[in-house]
Amino acid sequence: MENDETPVGIKRRDFIISSFILSAASFGCLSLTSCQAFSDWAVAEELTMSADRNDRFERGWKKLKEIDGDAGEKVIEALKDIAPDLGRYTIEYPFGDVYSREGLDVKSREIATVAALAAMGNAQPQLKVHIGAALNVGCSAQEIVEIIIQMSVYAGFPAALNAAAAAKAVFSERGIINV
Amino acid sequence: MENDETPVGIKRRDFIISSFILSAASFGCLSLTSCQAFSDWAVAEELTMSADRNDRFERGWKKLKEIDGDAGEKVIEALKDIAPDLGRYTIEYPFGDVYSREGLDVKSREIATVAALAAMGNAQPQLKVHIGAALNVGCSAQEIVEIIIQMSVYAGFPAALNAAAAAKAVFSERGIINV
Amino acid sequence: MENDETPVGIKRRDFIISSFILSAASFGCLSLTSCQAFSDWAVAEELTMSADRNDRFERGWKKLKEIDGDAGEKVIEALKDIAPDLGRYTIEYPFGDVYSREGLDVKSREIATVAALAAMGNAQPQLKVHIGAALNVGCSAQEIVEIIIQMSVYAGFPAALNAAAAAKAVFSERGIINV
Amino acid sequence: MENDETPVGIKRRDFIISSFILSAASFGCLSLTSCQAFSDWAVAEELTMSADRNDRFERGWKKLKEIDGDAGEKVIEALKDIAPDLGRYTIEYPFGDVYSREGLDVKSREIATVAALAAMGNAQPQLKVHIGAALNVGCSAQEIVEIIIQMSVYAGFPAALNAAAAAKAVFSERGIINV
Amino acid sequence: MENDETPVGIKRRDFIISSFILSAASFGCLSLTSCQAFSDWAVAEELTMSADRNDRFERGWKKLKEIDGDAGEKVIEALKDIAPDLGRYTIEYPFGDVYSREGLDVKSREIATVAALAAMGNAQPQLKVHIGAALNVGCSAQEIVEIIIQMSVYAGFPAALNAAAAAKAVFSERGIINV
Amino acid sequence: MENDETPVGIKRRDFIISSFILSAASFGCLSLTSCQAFSDWAVAEELTMSADRNDRFERGWKKLKEIDGDAGEKVIEALKDIAPDLGRYTIEYPFGDVYSREGLDVKSREIATVAALAAMGNAQPQLKVHIGAALNVGCSAQEIVEIIIQMSVYAGFPAALNAAAAAKAVFSERGIINV
Repeated sequence: MENDETPVGIKRRDFIISSFILSAASFGCLSLTSCQAFSDWAVAEELTMSADRNDRFERGWKKLKEIDGDAGEKVIEALKDIAPDLGRYTIEYPFGDVYSREGLDVKSREIATVAALAAMGNAQPQLKVHIGAALNVGCSAQEIVEIIIQMSVYAGFPAALNAAAAAKAVFSERGIINV
Repeated sequence: MENDETPVGIKRRDFIISSFILSAASFGCLSLTSCQAFSDWAVAEELTMSADRNDRFERGWKKLKEIDGDAGEKVIEALKDIAPDLGRYTIEYPFGDVYSREGLDVKSREIATVAALAAMGNAQPQLKVHIGAALNVGCSAQEIVEIIIQMSVYAGFPAALNAAAAAKAVFSERGIINV
Repeated sequence: MENDETPVGIKRRDFIISSFILSAASFGCLSLTSCQAFSDWAVAEELTMSADRNDRFERGWKKLKEIDGDAGEKVIEALKDIAPDLGRYTIEYPFGDVYSREGLDVKSREIATVAALAAMGNAQPQLKVHIGAALNVGCSAQEIVEIIIQMSVYAGFPAALNAAAAAKAVFSERGIINV
Repeated sequence: MENDETPVGIKRRDFIISSFILSAASFGCLSLTSCQAFSDWAVAEELTMSADRNDRFERGWKKLKEIDGDAGEKVIEALKDIAPDLGRYTIEYPFGDVYSREGLDVKSREIATVAALAAMGNAQPQLKVHIGAALNVGCSAQEIVEIIIQMSVYAGFPAALNAAAAAKAVFSERGIINV
Repeated sequence: MENDETPVGIKRRDFIISSFILSAASFGCLSLTSCQAFSDWAVAEELTMSADRNDRFERGWKKLKEIDGDAGEKVIEALKDIAPDLGRYTIEYPFGDVYSREGLDVKSREIATVAALAAMGNAQPQLKVHIGAALNVGCSAQEIVEIIIQMSVYAGFPAALNAAAAAKAVFSERGIINV
Repeated sequence: MENDETPVGIKRRDFIISSFILSAASFGCLSLTSCQAFSDWAVAEELTMSADRNDRFERGWKKLKEIDGDAGEKVIEALKDIAPDLGRYTIEYPFGDVYSREGLDVKSREIATVAALAAMGNAQPQLKVHIGAALNVGCSAQEIVEIIIQMSVYAGFPAALNAAAAAKAVFSERGIINV
């Protein structure tokens, strides 16, 4: 599906593990040690790395698109010329590992993220992405505003005012409010 | 009820508004301007202040106790010798105004607060109070741990590790984990 | 007076307390409990809320305009489409409660605020508003520059350099310096 | 080797991939799809997860011990009761992914980390661990002090003074200075 | 005077400027103006600058003791084993250069510093030193509390609460309050 | 040389030390050691210190231009209308004192600075200057990217992503990458 393609600029070194095992099996190897194809350490290495990439990267990429939508994709796209591995890690760790965890629903996760970014006050572009993400996963505009108002208590009024400006930009872009 | 009493050390200058209006009415004043007792500016001032205190302070105090429990009360108690008005404001604005708002349930509010305090990383005592508060309003220990793990993404691993240490202390105190 | 009008967008639910008491008195109620009009809890509630709004909001609005001038008004105006209640709180708590306090003169209050915002380094719009406010309440341009230089000691040179850029913009806008 | 053991408390769900493939091969499966043992999704899932764990976790654990030594191990140990997965991530992402990268020598990496933690000023325990780590990978005590002095420029004197106190504690513990 | 001695551990390379002028005089110059070598403006400038250099440390040391008192001295003392040059810089730049400037009275300077450190929230030891310093230069306890209350607006309630705890410790130590 | 000129707006009070020694010689001293006035160690020390003072600005200015190049000069230039003394201090303390120190090579110093500014996340203009400075003193683009990736661990992904955007702008401006 078009939506599930990996982004341009992220060097995909992954190798489909199932097809690899298939190949291995197709060699008719009866034991790993007696089989040339598998005695090569580098191949085994590739295998583990492929497995790694396959899983976390793919899962993360889907999660990123599910939560952040186009805005998330643009973040990764913008990294391709400068730090593609940071793009890969952004997919793998935050989305492949953390947002894919059970134990806290994704709406609550976005509430936590909007709160944290509003409170930190030094990550305006990410705050905008996650205000959009919060809307995507079911937060109402009102709930987002409530989180922002609450941050005046913990991080002060300037942090809340600047977060409100970020929300205004996102809500306006989405046609939620007319400015 | 014992639980609803205002804390010692917060100088209650409030004046029961109903009894004041009662008094006013008992003067038989037919109009405010013609009545000496009310033409005094200071009295009017007292009235508005009483009204103010009554509402926001009382609502905030109940909310504080409902959410933070004893830990919240201790925060206010600790301020009585140094900055009682900061104690009063802590009750009135965060709890009387913000936590009393509709539009976001109190569990989501505590998720936002734990996230923000963990991310800021410079408010360890308040983080502990709100980890406890999150438990009080229905967050599971697991959900709190999930918020903290997620903060490693936005504020870095040191912030998450220090928040985990705070959670460990609170969970241990509550007998949720044995350390 | 035009200058004292409340801003558009802030929903004024306040109720003039004096006229309410007047009305109460005009009922000829001799005691609050015996008077139907006042025995209604909701009305008493409305009364306290009106008193609250009246006092803190009006006092805060005047203080905001006195200190921040048009820049402050624009902050509130910008919130009307997104978070009018945050606008109301910004008037009520910082200005109605805190800046209206005795115990520290307003010039010292602005010195404190410019220092804090310069040191925090993540609230450039608010820093500009308060550099203007500092000028409004009697700080000289030189005193503001001294505060900023001093912040190089506590928050580092980047914080001081960025605050100097903010001061340059404000001073230039006011015609204090020609750039 | 004792030193390379994984820490207690980190639930090792890993599965030796080579032995697994071995087993698969030993089934004499000629193709993956025709082979019961591999048609089970859960097993495949386990495989990818094992591969994942194997690689990044093992590499990270060795790197953590090489760089941070016992101090790093204690960090992971302290998490076992509260957030073992955060411990696993701390091993996998910072150490398995980032510190294992080429392109910057490990001494330069510790210079960067000590600088960042000293400048942030809200991660004293981690700063101590990394001052020790910097010593472990070849920074001299003098070089560490130079980094700290330099942070007075970027984050202010309080940050530098508190980092110097952290260095004093670590150097004293290691017998580098006598206090 | 005992109080003016430089701290142990700070290498004193300073030289009494008067003895230098004495040396100049020993060249036979009876007056500075009648002596060619010294009548040169540039030389006089040079002399002043030497004095100044001398002066930065000496002036800073006096200023530090005047403002921070024993607490400041202890800060420098604590650095002697680990980073004496950071101690020297702390005397020379913040106190010799910045606090010695005209253009802002020292009381206003301490108001700015207490505000900044309270707002930053990650420099508790320095905040305590400067709460003491503020008292030393004429701030009342009440004025310090007002600054702290005001920081709840700009940096949030946790920052204000933690600063209040610092003030409580300092005021108690000084016998201003009994706890 | 054009490149070594001091910036407009910074008052040059410096004095060529050699002319001072010349003056000394004009007193009839044939050699420094045979001349009582100058044979005094303290005097020589004093002379050195004068030179040193002279030196802080001159040394700092050269260091600033060597490290930061034109970008550094523009920072100082931008201050001339608003806070020229902050410009002077920026030259004297960070560059005349700190970057001129021995004990840590200048490449390591820039690694530390890029790391700190990326982690702090509220000093984007200074981060750009120092990414350029890092290139100037021998860091490769790849090494800078590695530092930035590493900051995702300590300060979170938003800090790393914003630093990557800063690096992209600088690398693009220098023609290192084509965007």
